[in-house]
Amino acid sequence: MKRIDSVKNPQVKQWKKLHEKKERDRQGVFIVEGFHLVEEALKTKSRIKELVVADSIQIPSHWNVDDVSITIVNEAIMKVISDTETPQGVAAVCYQTQQEDIMNTATRILLLDAIQDPGNLGTIIRTADAAGLDAIVVGDGSVDVYNSKVIRSTQGAIFHVPILKKSELLDIIALLKERGISIYGTSLKNGEVFTNVQPSSSFALVVGNEGNGVSERVLAETNQNLYIPIYGKSESLNVAIASGILLYYLRGM
Amino acid sequence: MKRIDSVKNPQVKQWKKLHEKKERDRQGVFIVEGFHLVEEALKTKSRIKELVVADSIQIPSHWNVDDVSITIVNEAIMKVISDTETPQGVAAVCYQTQQEDIMNTATRILLLDAIQDPGNLGTIIRTADAAGLDAIVVGDGSVDVYNSKVIRSTQGAIFHVPILKKSELLDIIALLKERGISIYGTSLKNGEVFTNVQPSSSFALVVGNEGNGVSERVLAETNQNLYIPIYGKSESLNVAIASGILLYYLRGM
Repeated sequence: MKRIDSVKNPQVKQWKKLHEKKERDRQGVFIVEGFHLVEEALKTKSRIKELVVADSIQIPSHWNVDDVSITIVNEAIMKVISDTETPQGVAAVCYQTQQEDIMNTATRILLLDAIQDPGNLGTIIRTADAAGLDAIVVGDGSVDVYNSKVIRSTQGAIFHVPILKKSELLDIIALLKERGISIYGTSLKNGEVFTNVQPSSSFALVVGNEGNGVSERVLAETNQNLYIPIYGKSESLNVAIASGILLYYLRGM
Repeated sequence: MKRIDSVKNPQVKQWKKLHEKKERDRQGVFIVEGFHLVEEALKTKSRIKELVVADSIQIPSHWNVDDVSITIVNEAIMKVISDTETPQGVAAVCYQTQQEDIMNTATRILLLDAIQDPGNLGTIIRTADAAGLDAIVVGDGSVDVYNSKVIRSTQGAIFHVPILKKSELLDIIALLKERGISIYGTSLKNGEVFTNVQPSSSFALVVGNEGNGVSERVLAETNQNLYIPIYGKSESLNVAIASGILLYYLRGM
């Protein structure tokens, strides 16, 4: 166990930099904060690089922190690390993952085309995990999955479902098609009512940007495009809500 | 058309006060901001008390503002009225509604038990409208439906689906039961998988607080309590997501 007491310590500066995507990607790590998320992280210890704990905090006795690197810091340092106004006093620096090979075996897959709201992205990851998806592919133009607001909204699902960051969704679509997996786009026009397709243990669903939906070039490569009927006067559903309805329907129950 | 140029004008102070629930309720009005929401409000002119427009803004020519009271203001005043950092320059003061009698005829109803996150409440209202619900009952302990963040998240659905604010959900449940409408609660334990009940044109669904779910006293008065299976490692679904899945299932398609 180490202890750091100065906010000017170089290690503190390293942690502070993790608020920026560029630095998270360079170091290949990200930070999660708070008891719930750190506890979720501890369930897969290999994901954890180190724990950072405020000196005012007692580590819960049911946490197994054997072999985990722990640094004790004061409250001023915790505030620097934290993204919240009242930090809970525990944080974990975790490794990013990029499981390319999951695409060779996954049979229920969600593809995200330029999801920009952190709350939406986090909620979609949480929902996809709950629906038992095998993998999520986050395409270009999406907010960073390791953004602190995204992570909070996942409620820990960031550690549960394999997530692949991919600049080109079309490459993944081509690969999944070769494997015989049906690719469903979502579109308000020229689509099929989603209940017209059969639930299945093998599918890939693409949902898209909050304002523009799934891009035309992606819709052109899907096997079928689905829509959810709107019975009221609203023009559309929130993309996380639409994902929930479609994933629970498509997976079958 | 009036014009106000001083932020000290008493009318400006009245508008500013509408940021507070107490004053909104006292005046029986609320403010919506931005082109999309004002356009939605204009579809039901009787809901509009007055429009407030910045002098830099041209009212879109396709808006029918006949007989609508309009006040032109400068940008400083618009900032006072607005809840956003970069106001679009159009706002509408709208009347709150409380359609008690809708409970005598509505057959698809959503009841909300202490929903506290404004984004969740707004998204739930938008989703319920999309699913063609007849009415939403907002119970005690919920965030105010006329909160600006709630209204933004509804994307205009606040004007489309009748909303009843009710301190006691049990009174509504008793009334709906008398009318022979099945009341479904949502609960992680002691419930029935939701797909075990039949979709219907007549039901009331109760969803609850983000942390605690539907309260025990309400669950005790429902006809049946439902749950959505969790296939992954997440502990639960976001309440707006759960509402979307359940409402689209229960209404039948």
